[in-house]
Formats: sequence, structure tokens, C-alpha cells
Amino acid sequence: MTKEELKQLLQKYKRGTISEQQIIEKFSALQFESLGFATVDHHRQWRKGFPEVILCERKTPQQVAEIASRIYKRGQPLLATRASVAHFNAVKRRIRNAHYYEFAGVITANEPKSPSPNRGVILIVTAGTSDLPVAEEAAITARMMGNPIEKMYDVGVAGIHRLLSQSEKLIRANVIIVVAGMEGALPSVVGGLVDVPVIAVPTSVGYGASFQGITALLAMLNSCASGITVVNIDNGFGAGFAASLMNRT
Amino acid sequence: MTKEELKQLLQKYKRGTISEQQIIEKFSALQFESLGFATVDHHRQWRKGFPEVILCERKTPQQVAEIASRIYKRGQPLLATRASVAHFNAVKRRIRNAHYYEFAGVITANEPKSPSPNRGVILIVTAGTSDLPVAEEAAITARMMGNPIEKMYDVGVAGIHRLLSQSEKLIRANVIIVVAGMEGALPSVVGGLVDVPVIAVPTSVGYGASFQGITALLAMLNSCASGITVVNIDNGFGAGFAASLMNRT
Amino acid sequence: MTKEELKQLLQKYKRGTISEQQIIEKFSALQFESLGFATVDHHRQWRKGFPEVILCERKTPQQVAEIASRIYKRGQPLLATRASVAHFNAVKRRIRNAHYYEFAGVITANEPKSPSPNRGVILIVTAGTSDLPVAEEAAITARMMGNPIEKMYDVGVAGIHRLLSQSEKLIRANVIIVVAGMEGALPSVVGGLVDVPVIAVPTSVGYGASFQGITALLAMLNSCASGITVVNIDNGFGAGFAASLMNRT
Amino acid sequence: MTKEELKQLLQKYKRGTISEQQIIEKFSALQFESLGFATVDHHRQWRKGFPEVILCERKTPQQVAEIASRIYKRGQPLLATRASVAHFNAVKRRIRNAHYYEFAGVITANEPKSPSPNRGVILIVTAGTSDLPVAEEAAITARMMGNPIEKMYDVGVAGIHRLLSQSEKLIRANVIIVVAGMEGALPSVVGGLVDVPVIAVPTSVGYGASFQGITALLAMLNSCASGITVVNIDNGFGAGFAASLMNRT
Amino acid sequence: MTKEELKQLLQKYKRGTISEQQIIEKFSALQFESLGFATVDHHRQWRKGFPEVILCERKTPQQVAEIASRIYKRGQPLLATRASVAHFNAVKRRIRNAHYYEFAGVITANEPKSPSPNRGVILIVTAGTSDLPVAEEAAITARMMGNPIEKMYDVGVAGIHRLLSQSEKLIRANVIIVVAGMEGALPSVVGGLVDVPVIAVPTSVGYGASFQGITALLAMLNSCASGITVVNIDNGFGAGFAASLMNRT
Amino acid sequence: MTKEELKQLLQKYKRGTISEQQIIEKFSALQFESLGFATVDHHRQWRKGFPEVILCERKTPQQVAEIASRIYKRGQPLLATRASVAHFNAVKRRIRNAHYYEFAGVITANEPKSPSPNRGVILIVTAGTSDLPVAEEAAITARMMGNPIEKMYDVGVAGIHRLLSQSEKLIRANVIIVVAGMEGALPSVVGGLVDVPVIAVPTSVGYGASFQGITALLAMLNSCASGITVVNIDNGFGAGFAASLMNRT
Amino acid sequence: MTKEELKQLLQKYKRGTISEQQIIEKFSALQFESLGFATVDHHRQWRKGFPEVILCERKTPQQVAEIASRIYKRGQPLLATRASVAHFNAVKRRIRNAHYYEFAGVITANEPKSPSPNRGVILIVTAGTSDLPVAEEAAITARMMGNPIEKMYDVGVAGIHRLLSQSEKLIRANVIIVVAGMEGALPSVVGGLVDVPVIAVPTSVGYGASFQGITALLAMLNSCASGITVVNIDNGFGAGFAASLMNRT
Amino acid sequence: MTKEELKQLLQKYKRGTISEQQIIEKFSALQFESLGFATVDHHRQWRKGFPEVILCERKTPQQVAEIASRIYKRGQPLLATRASVAHFNAVKRRIRNAHYYEFAGVITANEPKSPSPNRGVILIVTAGTSDLPVAEEAAITARMMGNPIEKMYDVGVAGIHRLLSQSEKLIRANVIIVVAGMEGALPSVVGGLVDVPVIAVPTSVGYGASFQGITALLAMLNSCASGITVVNIDNGFGAGFAASLMNRT
Repeated sequence: MTKEELKQLLQKYKRGTISEQQIIEKFSALQFESLGFATVDHHRQWRKGFPEVILCERKTPQQVAEIASRIYKRGQPLLATRASVAHFNAVKRRIRNAHYYEFAGVITANEPKSPSPNRGVILIVTAGTSDLPVAEEAAITARMMGNPIEKMYDVGVAGIHRLLSQSEKLIRANVIIVVAGMEGALPSVVGGLVDVPVIAVPTSVGYGASFQGITALLAMLNSCASGITVVNIDNGFGAGFAASLMNRT
Repeated sequence: MTKEELKQLLQKYKRGTISEQQIIEKFSALQFESLGFATVDHHRQWRKGFPEVILCERKTPQQVAEIASRIYKRGQPLLATRASVAHFNAVKRRIRNAHYYEFAGVITANEPKSPSPNRGVILIVTAGTSDLPVAEEAAITARMMGNPIEKMYDVGVAGIHRLLSQSEKLIRANVIIVVAGMEGALPSVVGGLVDVPVIAVPTSVGYGASFQGITALLAMLNSCASGITVVNIDNGFGAGFAASLMNRT
Repeated sequence: MTKEELKQLLQKYKRGTISEQQIIEKFSALQFESLGFATVDHHRQWRKGFPEVILCERKTPQQVAEIASRIYKRGQPLLATRASVAHFNAVKRRIRNAHYYEFAGVITANEPKSPSPNRGVILIVTAGTSDLPVAEEAAITARMMGNPIEKMYDVGVAGIHRLLSQSEKLIRANVIIVVAGMEGALPSVVGGLVDVPVIAVPTSVGYGASFQGITALLAMLNSCASGITVVNIDNGFGAGFAASLMNRT
Repeated sequence: MTKEELKQLLQKYKRGTISEQQIIEKFSALQFESLGFATVDHHRQWRKGFPEVILCERKTPQQVAEIASRIYKRGQPLLATRASVAHFNAVKRRIRNAHYYEFAGVITANEPKSPSPNRGVILIVTAGTSDLPVAEEAAITARMMGNPIEKMYDVGVAGIHRLLSQSEKLIRANVIIVVAGMEGALPSVVGGLVDVPVIAVPTSVGYGASFQGITALLAMLNSCASGITVVNIDNGFGAGFAASLMNRT
Repeated sequence: MTKEELKQLLQKYKRGTISEQQIIEKFSALQFESLGFATVDHHRQWRKGFPEVILCERKTPQQVAEIASRIYKRGQPLLATRASVAHFNAVKRRIRNAHYYEFAGVITANEPKSPSPNRGVILIVTAGTSDLPVAEEAAITARMMGNPIEKMYDVGVAGIHRLLSQSEKLIRANVIIVVAGMEGALPSVVGGLVDVPVIAVPTSVGYGASFQGITALLAMLNSCASGITVVNIDNGFGAGFAASLMNRT
Repeated sequence: MTKEELKQLLQKYKRGTISEQQIIEKFSALQFESLGFATVDHHRQWRKGFPEVILCERKTPQQVAEIASRIYKRGQPLLATRASVAHFNAVKRRIRNAHYYEFAGVITANEPKSPSPNRGVILIVTAGTSDLPVAEEAAITARMMGNPIEKMYDVGVAGIHRLLSQSEKLIRANVIIVVAGMEGALPSVVGGLVDVPVIAVPTSVGYGASFQGITALLAMLNSCASGITVVNIDNGFGAGFAASLMNRT
Repeated sequence: MTKEELKQLLQKYKRGTISEQQIIEKFSALQFESLGFATVDHHRQWRKGFPEVILCERKTPQQVAEIASRIYKRGQPLLATRASVAHFNAVKRRIRNAHYYEFAGVITANEPKSPSPNRGVILIVTAGTSDLPVAEEAAITARMMGNPIEKMYDVGVAGIHRLLSQSEKLIRANVIIVVAGMEGALPSVVGGLVDVPVIAVPTSVGYGASFQGITALLAMLNSCASGITVVNIDNGFGAGFAASLMNRT
Repeated sequence: MTKEELKQLLQKYKRGTISEQQIIEKFSALQFESLGFATVDHHRQWRKGFPEVILCERKTPQQVAEIASRIYKRGQPLLATRASVAHFNAVKRRIRNAHYYEFAGVITANEPKSPSPNRGVILIVTAGTSDLPVAEEAAITARMMGNPIEKMYDVGVAGIHRLLSQSEKLIRANVIIVVAGMEGALPSVVGGLVDVPVIAVPTSVGYGASFQGITALLAMLNSCASGITVVNIDNGFGAGFAASLMNRT
């Protein structure tokens, strides 16, 4: 429902064409749809500028497929993260042109044809090769939300020249997502070089005292560089979503 | 040194008016100034759009005063956080018109007269009254960087109507900083209502299993709402700085 | 043994019909039954109003079946939680009309036909779809103990209107169980709206810094709303049991 | 505003005596009052059955006094916890008959003369003498909310007969609050003996690996006895409040 | 080598029958035997009163079998803990009369025929049925070291009468091992009733905030009862060994 | 009350000289004495062989003095640990010949004149000089309970010869208490050399990643040497008490 | 590129034979090679004295094989750690004479024929047999870097004579790597005996409160012996690499 | 005692000039000296190349002064760390030419006049100004052990050019100590640039989620750069000592 439609509805109510009860029911129906096990939040696109995104982990394939098809039927862009092959298969059965990015564990449908006009570039940087699945989740999310994307992978601080030699890419970007595991030092170095927002994404890459990403998370929260904000461990989606909002402001 | 000055320097070098060695030295000198105990990063204003900010904690009053006067002399805005009265007194002796916000522990000088034109509003929200010192640190930082500020204090989730009844303030903002201690739930609720970036700042407010802000930090990192990024516990400065960069993009 | 039977026993003792030794043995026998590996606490129904409940995890199917059949034979309601299919199969071989709720991992027998009269409604609320197995464990437990149940699933704080639009359900309830993972914010919002006891159940739903439910647990313990008490992570049974006692007081 | 007053207001609106705008403003004004640093939630008494309670820790004496006087003026019962002498002095200056329980760190005014009729007894049990300040905070809270109170102090599990010999007190209670530090074992034993709700309050009493109450908290969350729910470390207020709600259901 | 043999050796040396070099080599050879991957400590029986015990976890079956056969060949009692079936099969191939207690994961050979004379009873108590594997590891260890054993299983604090009704067993024991998971409260209750050493063994039984036994461990370390000492989580062997030393003093 | 007195009491009851009610009251009275804030457990000497010990921390001086005088009046040995000077002064006013060991924070009265006959030696070993206060708490406790004591201080593993050169002291002991902070390695070395029980006491000595004794505690729990049991951080009293029970068995 | 080649390049530039642009491109090309998913750091051999080492964990077999073949083609020594059989098979298909140390999970190619001349011995010591895989990773790394290696395995502190009797090996070494799990005490004892650098490697060997190596890590960081530095849990490679650098200084 | 003196002693023994008993006593006496509360390890200079160093924290001024004077009297270099003014005053009374570095909390006496010949440079680098006290502790330690020192302070990664512009200093060093708090990223960048050992020292500088240095410690342990080893938080002494041993090999 557009804002225009809403206005018309309210005017009808004023004129008495529809009752108070009717207007309330209409509005409520718009907002969410109850599937028993899930309350799909259709209102979200209006509030957040993007429809509900499905976190597949811990949902059954059937549950995911059911929610996905409700979103898809409204012509909204479909994004489902942390999806297994089983999740995809269940979705595929109901949405023929659904696409699966296996490496990143992402299902999409209704992808935008091209980036929205007048958007700056979102640059996605990783410290190592093992951080790629998380980086790709961020990249797909940002692209689904209409942003042009650039990538700079495997440029961790142990070989700092790999990053510095590509500094023009850093300067060109409007928002930067930095994905790193282990000691999580890369966002600090990047953050010290640019004057745009840097979103740090800790990954669970590492072993021993990396504690499945806690070390990288803590390091990023304590960055001595300014302008860095942090999302949850392995949360590529969250970084891509937030970067898109920052790119819009 | 402005970019224009740099260009002129490079052209002189091309014409042979100055040697390679001279240009390198000149450039290096610009970048930082060694005080023995500190290497002041004067280059930062160019790279980051704002000069070095002094974290006073763990520095002696003399160290802070020395660094502050170097920044001040260049006419740059001075911002020093987590400052005690002792820090301020030492600074005051060298910078007559320095100002101290005791409640927030912040020292400033060379404050901007008014917000920069064409900036959106940064809204600062707190869950409780005890979160104010951190919120004020964020507010002063954002204002020092030229942003118009609005505030909405003590609207935590235990009385959700206090927040909802002021929703037009939320909608008006371009970037929102949400400051909360205890269970840190407020950013999730705010994040679910708006389509602009939300920066969550956990505070050390609480007791027992709040663990000096760890609980709030973890809650914010795990927010089910999209578009939220997080900074360190009690890091009002970091939130204000990042919000300013987001407001600029 | 009912209290009436006890009284008769004591009077017999007074009259000398049975010896002190006999009465002591009789009483002890009632209390528990030793299976070598387990000491079944038959006395519990009298003390707690509900017989011993079997936590299947870490018990062998044979152990569970053995204990279950002792409880079942006395005609007491049988409740076994965290049960695998293997546990159920072993129980089924001895108790023909045992029932298995696979989704919730619960085995029951001797279920009550209908809720006890004069009981208020216990409402079970979840933040997300992934919290359902825990919520169902709570629901089955409360129902086994004779309580009428209502449910409100997938109404997390990222879309707060899903909760608020059903507020009359909240108001109707006598006790509310709120099940949530990730940042665990929902109990605070619910707790701020009602004047009945709210039992918060953290779940292990989430990833990264959710730490298998620790974040949700800590958030709930630090809730700024009053009247909230908390049980262990994923402890749907505990919540259902406690809610039933509260519904009885 | 009572519900009756609300009804009258709505009828006036229907009759057109007051405008929609007026009714909305009236309602909002009732709900909270903005002090700049705090948004006092006057609506809470209606929603929760008890007005806002002030957590003094981290608030300045002036802030506490300001909020307290707003609550007091409305004739509502005043309860302020974790209050220092400085807090009390500031309150005393504005509320002449305010009372300070120094041992428990609690300020009250407008105490109820006697327990509400038809209420069961709330029993407060402690493991040791050092747990008393927390127990007293719970007791005062419950009494302020109109409940009859009984106490059983220093009956920890190292001398289990001290508890067992007073079992009739346990049986008489309608809700039981058990306060314990160190290994936090007492709630399990109590919970195994009764069929009413048991609220466990971990305290920071102990040293070394008690970790300021974490050990007791974890022990209580893992209790093998059913019907136990837990509140934050040292949160006597929370236990007293929840117990009162349970006593009402 | 007995102490008598040592004396004779030293006298030979004094008489010059053997050289200093020879005596040193003899002594060294006795002490340990190098297998490349392991340095078997044959001297241990003399120092500790019991030969080296093999912790199988993380050793290959071949490594375990090799070490076991060296110990077995000297006629010493063989005890190998945390052994899988694969470990046992490898041992069985070299030691025909090796025995496997699968439930407890223990391999033995050269078991003592009967308890050593003049030893007191070691009583092993468990809180629940799930604690049995750890309790059995303790029992086998203590029996292998020549101690008479008694058992009292599944008598946790949620049904305290199960323990109290068997108090004469507690009083009869010379050393008591208490095995418990979850909140680990049982050792405190037992410790408050007896005047002999109590060894508390936390187990990884539980879920959620039991953190694989950490909660039980912490609770036991903070016991308010005196005379309790603690071993590592699930360390039945350690408890059995220590109990045996205590039974000897 | 001795066991003889108890028997006489029971016989009187059988003869009808005293009523059931009277015998029950008599028995209860013996057990504990209620001070309102504390329930002194006079029965403990009978159950545990030593009267209640007062942990002064978190108790007011008045509370400690009150409890102490009750114990003292019965002629029982008085032991109060973690006592400040203020605690001692309050005790001293009521018990003239109370003694204060300031270094160890221990108050005593009614000390035994000499060790009980037929007791073995309890040896107390420390890794460093900073561990002395804890070691002394253990020593005083063990001596109060009638044990002969030996000491071996500052023999940590960084200079292992300091320990090895005094090995005859180790061999002479019947029970050994090893007190160590930092990496807590000393109990493992001692435990590998002797065949008597070793009680490991972690201390909060150290800095940084010693985490106030957690590192030492964990190291001791994971000792590769057999026969070691552990008590809480800085719990010299617990070690001394347990050692005394082990010395008695 | 050798330093000689670099010099010639710079002289060509001076003579104008090649342009500035060309020299920059040449230099950049040397430094790293982009594979899209990885930026191979060929410059590393010059900076660090050893080419990039591949951490296989979390990389796909294809990614590892691709990177490995780039390193191998340049004739540089190839070292890949934490490699599974799948990784090895993929590498083997491209590098015929690659070698797999399955026990240590290491792939190598272009191994040095013999140790570099004038190098001291690196001694690798383990506490137990289970620490061998980590020790072997260290040994292979150090050997690949041209160092002579000695080993002393299974000499943990529970049988301290096993270590002391081989003290001449300790004295002969130039750098010592000590590998230990559980309580991690061995480095302290070794560190107290020698005057060369000791690198402590905690392993994840142990159970319960060993927390996958955290206990050993913490113990080593808190060692009371001087001259000890620590690497990550199970980081045999890191220890071997650092030892090699120390052996070179 | 020099090695020469030892040889002469052994020859005397062979000639029968002194008895076995005498030689053993002489040797033992050399090794350590018992002060009751401390066992001074005089043997350490021989084993470790440097005498015992006093950690003053948790020792009384009297204890420190007593141990210091024993070391000083033998003409050995005296080094006491974490010393307060009170410690220094007590030492000063007995050792007239003792020196106190208040900023670093270090007491020295018998300092070497100049660095030992043929030693490489130890470079000490800090991320910030607040890390100086720890860096100075390292510098004094290394200088006391005869090493030439260079310093590079306040060159953290937020302004990476401050470090890179001084790269010739990095290349000149033989061993590098990197001191950093907060996110602890600097050692990774330095470690990526050099081929000498890098010792990382985490400091407790930072706030919130820096957890008193834990974040920096974890980051350093997980460094993606090779050749880095780590010491305890704030352990400047340990780094200086280890660096000196590495400089010697």
C-alpha cells in the first residue's frame, strides 16, 4: 500500500464510506500475515525500505518455503540467508526462478536489474581468502538493495602493501565493509585512511584463542581508528544492509 | 596543507625549484610532530576530515595539555574525551578559551559556530537517565563535527509508549544514535521503526549480570532488527564520530 | 497415598495395630523406589503436585523406559523431555499409548482430558519462528499440568506492531511465558505492558555473539521491566512448570 | 486517571464535547512527564499496578529527588532502591516524611498502612547473614506492594536441619523468595519441598570463584528442582516485585 | 625395584662391585622407558603407590596398546580411562585378559582380587542417573587401588529425603565422593552432614547455562560446607585416586 | 550434648518422664540459636567435629561479635576468617583473650594447647612470598583443629631445586597443602613426587591474564599429577579444614 | 627479484630507459598476484625470509591447490598447515612431488636438503604423547626453514625426573619449544633451567576445565619463569617459525 | 660461584680434601638462602644469566628490601618491578645508590655502565602514549641485561604512515618489542614487515570491551603475521627479558 492509497482510505473513512472497524482490519491485514508458526511482516518494506529477510538457520525447509512464497507473491525482492541446499530445494519447488549462491548460503529472487541511480560505491574488503563467504553475503545483500559494489579481497595486515597499493579504490568508495577474522586488525588500518563510514565484520575464521570470532569482534570494537562501527560475527547480511542505509542517507 | 598547496608543491618539484629530498621532508613534517611520548598526527584532518581527538584516560595532565596545545595552535577544533578535572586544569593553563563539559568529561576549544549547511539531523536517544553522560559525549562530538542534533532521553522499552508517541522525531532524523545499558533492547525497537542507520551504544549502566555493559553490547550485536551497527561500551565519542561520517556520505 | 490414607495409618499405629518399624518402612517405600541407577521419587507428586519428570538427555533409552514405566504404572501423568526418537521407541515398547511430540522432543502419557477448572490462561509468546520447539515444550508441560493455553508466535521487537496489535491477548492472560533468542528483548517489552508474572525463556537461537543463548539469557536477567523472572536457556519445561505453579497460587 | 475517568472522557468525545486532538493530548499528558533528563512514566501504575520505581545508582541526587517528588505529589507510593545517603538527603529536602532503610539502601514514602486483604504470605529465606541487605530490599518492596511478609534467615544447606526444622513456615507460604550467594544451592532444596513458585535471588556474597554472584546465578538457573525462576544478581527489588505479581494472580 | 634392592645396590657401589656410571644407568633405566612418542614412567608405582594410568583420549589405539603392554608386562595393575572401543580392541590384541567397562570407558587388567585389609569404605554418591558414567570411573579406580566401595545413586537435592533417609551409609563411609552436574548442590548438603573428607566431582550433565559442567564446578568450589575439595569436570578417575590416597593416610 | 546425654534423654522419653513435644523442643534448641540475622549452628561440632567458623567478610563487626560470643561461651574453639581490624575490635570488646593474626586476617580464641596425639604432619608449601597470607590462614586453621604443622615457603617451579633439595620434608608429611598463584604449576610437581593427598590452593597473586587467581585455579584442576584436589581461590581456611579431616581418616 | 635486480632496475630508470610508470608497475607486479579470491604475497620471502605459508582450514581444496602451485612454480619452499586429505589430494594433482605429513596435517614441497650451516639446535619438548601432532607441526616448520631439530617427548611435570635426567639436551639447545596441554606447567620448569628463549605452545589436549587449551594458554602467559613467550593454542607452525627467526638473530 | 670455582671444588673432593657432605652443603648454600618468608634463588644467575628479579606487587616493603639487599650484597644487578614509592623507600634505606623509575615503577641498582659489546639493537615500539609505562619497564629491563635500546613511540595503526615512514628503524633492529592496548593490531603490521623476532606486549590501555587488556592479548595471539610471540598483559619486564635472551642466541 502506497501512502497515496492510505490517504484515500482515510478520506473514505471520514466520508463514512467505510467503518472504523473496516479501516482497522484493512490496515492490520496489510501489516502482517499469520502463518501459525510465523507472522510475516509485510509492513516492513514501508518502514525499512526493504521487505523482511529470512534467516533460514533453525527454520525447517517447509517454513522457509512458506514465508518465501508469501514475500515473492507480492513482487518484493526475496532474500534468504544462511540457507542450506535443503532450504533452497524447498523454496525452488514453489519459486521457479529462485537463485542459490551456495558459497554464501544465500537464496534470492526478484533481483534488481541494475543498481539504483545516484548511489555511491560500497567497497567490500577482506583480510583473507577464508573470509569470502561472509563477504559475499554482504555483497549480495547490498546489491539486492540496489547498490553498486566493488571488492578487494585477501589484503590483510600481514602484507600491508597489498592494501596500500590499492588506496585509490578505498578513496573512491562511499561506504566500506571490512571483513576479517583472527586478530581483526584490518578495519583499524582502513579506518585510519578514509573519511567514510567503515563497517567492520568479524568472522569466525581462526583457531585456538580466536574463539570462533570473539577475538576479531573485540578487536574491532576497540579500534583506535574513528568512524568504525561493528556488526555480529559472520553477519555479512547485517553489514550489507546497514551499508545500504548509510549509502542512502 | 590544503590539496591546492600540495599541487603547487608538486609543480615546484617538477620545475626543479625544490629537490626530491626537500619535498619528502616537507611532506613528512606535515604529517606528524614528535613529542617524544606522542606522535601527533596532524595529517589526520586531511585523511579523516577531523583532527586527532585526545583520549585523556591513562595520559598525564601534562601529556594531554601538550598535545592539545599543538592541535589548538593550528586552529583546528580541539576535542578531548574522558577528561578529568585535572586534565582540564592543565589544558586551561595553555588554552584560555578551552571549555569543560564536566558531566560528559569532555574538553573542547575552537567549537564551530553553527552546524554545517545541508546536513541532516542526528538524533540521540537514551533508554534511561543514567545513560546521559555517554549520550552527551556523542552529542558534543557530533556537534563539534558540524551536525545539527536532536535528543530524546529516557524512553526505554519498559514504557514503550514514551518512544512510540514521539515517532515523528524518529522519522525526521537522518542518523540515529541509541544509547542503552542493562538489557540494551532499545536499538532493536528503534531499528525496527526507521529506514536510516542506527548506531547502538551500550553503556555500563546496570549491575550484577549486566557485567559493566557486556550484556547490552551482546544484545545490540544480536539485534533482530536490520541496519544496526555497534560501537564499544560507553563509547559516545565513537558513535558521534561515525554518525557524522554517515551524515556526510 | 492420599493424606486420608496417611491419617488412617497413623491412627493404626496409635492403636498398636502396626509397629513403629512397619510405619517407617511403609512411608519410606512410598517415597522412592530404587532401580540401582535411579531413585524414582514417587513422593514428589505429593510435595510438588506433579510427579517426577524425566530429562532424557544423557540417559540411555533403557533407563528412560524403566523409569517411565514405574511412573506410568501408578497412573500418574508421564512427562519426558529432550527425548530422542530412540528414547521414544524404548518407552513405546513398554507403554503402548505413549505419545511423542517430535518437534518439541517430548514424550507423554496419561494426558489430562481437559484443563482443570478455575484456572487462568497461560499465554506463550515467541520472538521468532525458530523459538517454536522451546515454546512447544513449555506449552505441553503447562497443558499436562492442567492449564488452558494460548499462543502468540513470531512477534519479535523488530516489528513491534505485530505484538501491540494483539494486546488484548496479553491482557487476557494470567501468566505469560516469553520465549526469545538473539538479543532477548521481547520480555522487556511485554513486561512493560502487563501486570501479571512474565517468565522469560532465553533460547539458543542466533549465531556469533549470541553464544548459544547466553546473550538472550543475560538480556532477560537485566530487563528494565519489572515482574520478569528467568529460567535456563531452552528450558521450556521449567517455564511451563513454574507458570503452572504461579497459575495455582 | 482511573478506568472510569477514561470511559467518561471517551463518551465526551463521542458527544463532541471534546475534540480528537484534545483527547489525544490529555491521554499523552497522563502517560509521562518530561524532565529533560528523564521521562517519568506516570502511566505505569495503570499498566503494572505500581508506579515507576527509581533505581538510584548512577543517577545524581538531584535527578533522584526531582523524579521522586513528581511521583510523591501524585500520592503514589514512592520506592527508590540502591540509594546512598546522599540520594536520601536530596529526597528528604523535598519530601519531609520520606524514610530511609540504610541497611537495604531503600527510600520510601507513602507506605501502605497494612497488607492488602486476601493476600497470601510471601516468605523470604536467606542462606547466610551476609545476604540480608538483598533480602531486606525484597521484603520492603513486597510490603510496599501490599503483601504480608515472613522471614527465615541464615538457613543455608551446610546445616540443612535449620531449614527442615522450620518446614511448616515453608508450607504456609504462597510465594517463596530464596536469597543465596556462594554456591547458591538453597533454592534447589527449598524448591524440592514445596508446590508454590520459588524466586531465586543470587547475591554477590562470596569470594574467589564466586565471581560476584555469577556462580550462584548459574547454579540457580540450572536447578534440578522444578518451579524455580531467577532474577539478576542482588536484585532483591525484582524478586519482591515479581513475587507480588505472583501473589496477585 | 623394592627399597631393599636399592639398598643392596648402593652397598655394592660402596664396595666397588659396580661403578658409579653403572648405578646411575641402572637407576635411570628403572625410571622410565622411552617409546619415542611416550616416556613410560615405571618409577611412578614407587613414588605414588600406583603405576602410570593411561588417559586414552587423543592417543591413537596403537599408542595406548603399546604403553599398556609395557605396564602389563611388569605385572602392575593396568588402568586406562576415557577409552573408546577402538582403544580397547587394540589393547585386547596384546593383553588377552584385559577387561572393558564400556559404560565408564575404562580398560583394566591385573585387577586386585579383593580390597586391601584395614581400609575404610569409600562411598560414591550421585545426584542423578546421568552422572553414572563418571561415578563408575571413580568406583573402578578406587577398587583397582584396593578400596572397598559403596554406592548411593540418584539422590539429588530436589528430593532431599532420598539422601537423608540413607544417612547411616553416609556416616559409615571413610571418604565420600559426590558426583553431580547441573547446579552441583549435592556436595554442600553431604558436606554439612559428615566429618570425613568429601571429594566433589562436577559433571558435564545439564544444558544451557550449565556450560558443560562449569556451573557445577563453580558451585562446588564455592561450597558453604567445610571439608570439600574439588576435581576437574567429569574427572571420576581423579576423584577415585585422591580418595584412595585419603583412605590410606 | 554428648551421645550419652542423648541416650538418657531417649530412655526418659520411653519411660514417659518427658513428652514427645519436650524431647523435640530440647533437640531443636540444641541445634541452633536464632539471633534474627543469623542462625548459629551449635550442632555443627557434633556433625563435623568442629564448631561453626565465621566468615567475617560482608558481615558487620556487630554481627561477627554477636555470633563469636555465642560460640565462645560454650567453650568451643573460635575461628573467624577474613576479619578486618574493625571486626577484631568488636570481638575483642566481648572476648578478652581473643587473638588477631593481622597478616592472615584471622581471629581465634580457645586455641588448643598442643596438637592432638597420633596425628601426622600437615605440610604447607607456597610457590612465592606473596602467597603467605593464604598459607597462614590454612596453617592457623589446621593448628586450631589439632594438627602438627610444617612449612616450606617460596619454592616455586622457576627454581625447582629449591623444592627438590627439601624432598625429605615432602616425604615426611601425611597431607600436603600447596599454595600458588600465577600459573599454579607447583601442585603438579609436588603431586608427582608423593603418595599422600595434595590439596591445591590457588591464590589471586599475579596480574594481567592471571585474572585474580582463575588461571591458577584452572591449572590446578587440570593437573596431570594424580591425587590432587582443589579448593576455591585464596581459600586457605578450606584447605586447612579439609587437610585436617584427611589427617583424621 | 633479488636486491641486485632491483638496483639495476633503478639505474635504468635514472638513465630514462624505463618510465616511472613502468617501474611502479613492475614493482607492484612482483609483490602480489591476484587470484580473485586470494592475493598471493610473493614479496613476503624478501621481507620475512620465507614465502607465504598456506593455512588450509576454511579454504576449499581448489583454493589451496591454486595458491600452492603459484608458490611452487617460483621454486620457493611450499608449506601448508592444517591440511586435510582432501586438501592434499587437490595439491597433489598439480604438484607431483608434494608430501603429506598426515599425523601433523602438513603439506610440503621443495623441502631443503639439509639444515643451513651455522645454525644452533631447536629443541622441541612435549608434556605428553597427545601433544605430538602440534609438536610435529612445529618441527616440520623449523626444518623447512633450515634448522637442525632435536626432540624430547612425553616428559611432563607429573614425573619431573624424566625431564631432569635429560638436562644436557636442554643445555645444548639454542632455542626451545615446549608443547603442553592440560595445566601447561612444563614451560615454567624448563624456563627455570635454561638461558635461551623458550617458546610455549599450549595445546587443546585435556578435558573439562582445560577449555580446549585456554587453561594451558593462561598458565603459560603467567609463567613465573623468565624468558618465556607464548603463541596461540595448537599453533605449532607459529612456534616453529618464531623459533627459526630467533635462531637467526 | 664461577664455573672455574666449581671445578676446583670437585677436584678437591676427588683428592679427599673435602667430604661428600661438605661439597653438597656448599653447593646447596650457593643455590638459595632462606629468609623464612622467601627462598632467594642465588643460583639463578648461573642458570639464567641474570639474578632473581623481584616482583614487588603483593610483597611488603620490608620483604622487598630484605630480598633486594641479599641480591645487592653479592654485587649482582638489582631489578625490582611493579614497585611503589613505599617499596622504594624501604629499599633505599638499605641500598644507598638504588634508583627509582617512578613512571615505570622500577627499582634498580648496580646498573651496567654500557651495553655489552656485539649485541644487536632491541627496538621498542608503542601504539599510543598511554602504553609508555609498560614500554619503559621493558626498556629498563633490556638495558639492565646489557642491550642497546631504540624507541619508536605512539605509532599506532590508526595513522599507519607514522610507522611506515620510520621503516629503516624497524629494519635496523635485531629484536622488536611491540607494546599496544585496545585492539592490539600493531604487532601484526610490524610482524609483516620484518624478519626478526617480534615480541608482542598487550597493555591494559582501553575501556569497555578492551577488558583490561584481554582484547589486545587475544588479538596478538591470533596475529596473521608470522614470527610473533606474546607475553602477559602489561608484562614489560617479561618482554625485555625474553628479548635479551633472543638477542644473545
